[in-house]
Amino acid sequence: MVEAALAQCVPEPAGAAARLNEAMRYSLLDGGKRLRPILAIAACEAVGGRVEAALGLACAIEMIHTYSLIHDDLPCMDDDDFRRGRPSNHKVYGDAIATLAGDALLTDAFKVLVRMSAGGSPPAILETISELAGAAGSAGMVGGQTIDLMSEGKDLAIEQLEELHSKKTGALFAAAIRGGARLGGAAALQMESLDAYARLLGLAFQVVDDLLDVEGSQEAMGKQVRKDEARGKATYPAILGVERSREMARELQRGAHRALEGFGADAEPLRRIATFVVERKL
Amino acid sequence: MVEAALAQCVPEPAGAAARLNEAMRYSLLDGGKRLRPILAIAACEAVGGRVEAALGLACAIEMIHTYSLIHDDLPCMDDDDFRRGRPSNHKVYGDAIATLAGDALLTDAFKVLVRMSAGGSPPAILETISELAGAAGSAGMVGGQTIDLMSEGKDLAIEQLEELHSKKTGALFAAAIRGGARLGGAAALQMESLDAYARLLGLAFQVVDDLLDVEGSQEAMGKQVRKDEARGKATYPAILGVERSREMARELQRGAHRALEGFGADAEPLRRIATFVVERKL
Repeated sequence: MVEAALAQCVPEPAGAAARLNEAMRYSLLDGGKRLRPILAIAACEAVGGRVEAALGLACAIEMIHTYSLIHDDLPCMDDDDFRRGRPSNHKVYGDAIATLAGDALLTDAFKVLVRMSAGGSPPAILETISELAGAAGSAGMVGGQTIDLMSEGKDLAIEQLEELHSKKTGALFAAAIRGGARLGGAAALQMESLDAYARLLGLAFQVVDDLLDVEGSQEAMGKQVRKDEARGKATYPAILGVERSREMARELQRGAHRALEGFGADAEPLRRIATFVVERKL
Repeated sequence: MVEAALAQCVPEPAGAAARLNEAMRYSLLDGGKRLRPILAIAACEAVGGRVEAALGLACAIEMIHTYSLIHDDLPCMDDDDFRRGRPSNHKVYGDAIATLAGDALLTDAFKVLVRMSAGGSPPAILETISELAGAAGSAGMVGGQTIDLMSEGKDLAIEQLEELHSKKTGALFAAAIRGGARLGGAAALQMESLDAYARLLGLAFQVVDDLLDVEGSQEAMGKQVRKDEARGKATYPAILGVERSREMARELQRGAHRALEGFGADAEPLRRIATFVVERKL
């Protein structure tokens, strides 16, 4: 459902700016895990909402996530040549079109969110837009990427590493989960439990990401591995060691499951996502 | 009023991402003409709305305009070293932070728009967000910048040049004017007249921009001039000649004034802006 909806979010390449649409589609429709859209939908369903209520948010968040990958891979940023097993966007389309494709995915995401949410509660949609922009912007994801870039080669305390990741990846996870739940009609108490779930899940995701960079292969991951160490980036395995990091990930997963104790069978997808995030191999 | 509001739109530099906030403030608070915010406010007032109803849109549009200048100036794009009389963002903060500052201004703009519009009609605000994202995204400004980049060194027909500029600059002008009017409570007939005004004004702005690049000095303009010719960019003076272009700008100004004939004294600022756009020296 998400794949089909995403394919509708970027026009078919045509006209004088066809190359831009091609570049947008290249990165958006490349078979990512779609973890953030699925979280938005699962959170919506966990509170008894219909999938359709969260589908616009799901697509918008994946577009924003995709833009961030395109810009992060640019030579002036992390300078990555591969992403999801294929050459990164700028290796195919050049730096200028890659920058523009990222800009366009980010901008179009807000149009998609409004258009695909027609029929929902306008105040809830406005709050979701505001929260999404906050999570993706200077106080969230972009702020986290800034801290990440400026921390290279520096020793970080574990608290600083957590601040970095809560902004760089955690904020967008939380926006997916909170937004999906809000659009599904969540009650205030449900929101609180889902906040806890989101915080633990985001952290678990990052710890496992760091572990996979140490232990994974480029073949399985579809991107260069062992780059964190080469760049002098602070990671959980570097600070805590591999064994302690793996334990931490499992403990976070158990915490995420505990946060959902007040929910019934409708939250089963959220529980399985927490398990997947910790057990995944890519 | 716009300057004071913009200064509130980006947090004071603090914490680990302070450099990002500095870079955002450097370009946002640099004394631009604020033409788009003033258009949003003037359109709101022209239909009898209160200034405050359009102030969030005014700030959001200036943030989006500023991000586009930062990204356009990057080495991989137009590679401009000066902007508004000062070194461009990436010359001061480096390409990575400049890219992120642009990303953050674009993203935060949508949060600002929602937050500062509290109290307005939620459906009207949602429509304004959708239209703004459409005007700034792949089908608007970013699409226009793509066509601009891909047309360098090529001969463009006047129709292609108009398509380029209607996307690259016209769409955001129109979003400012239409959005300001909508948030001010415009009637459908007023919207139609303002659409015509916006189209003529946007085109006039671009013709004069091209003329200033030929005739202006770097000192007066605060940026490098005569770059269009050096880059083989299609311009109105190149296609029509200087005299014919100046005539065209004056004719567009008269057309913009005619489009406002149904409005009274409340539209006087919009009329004066059309005159300013054609008579300006920078």
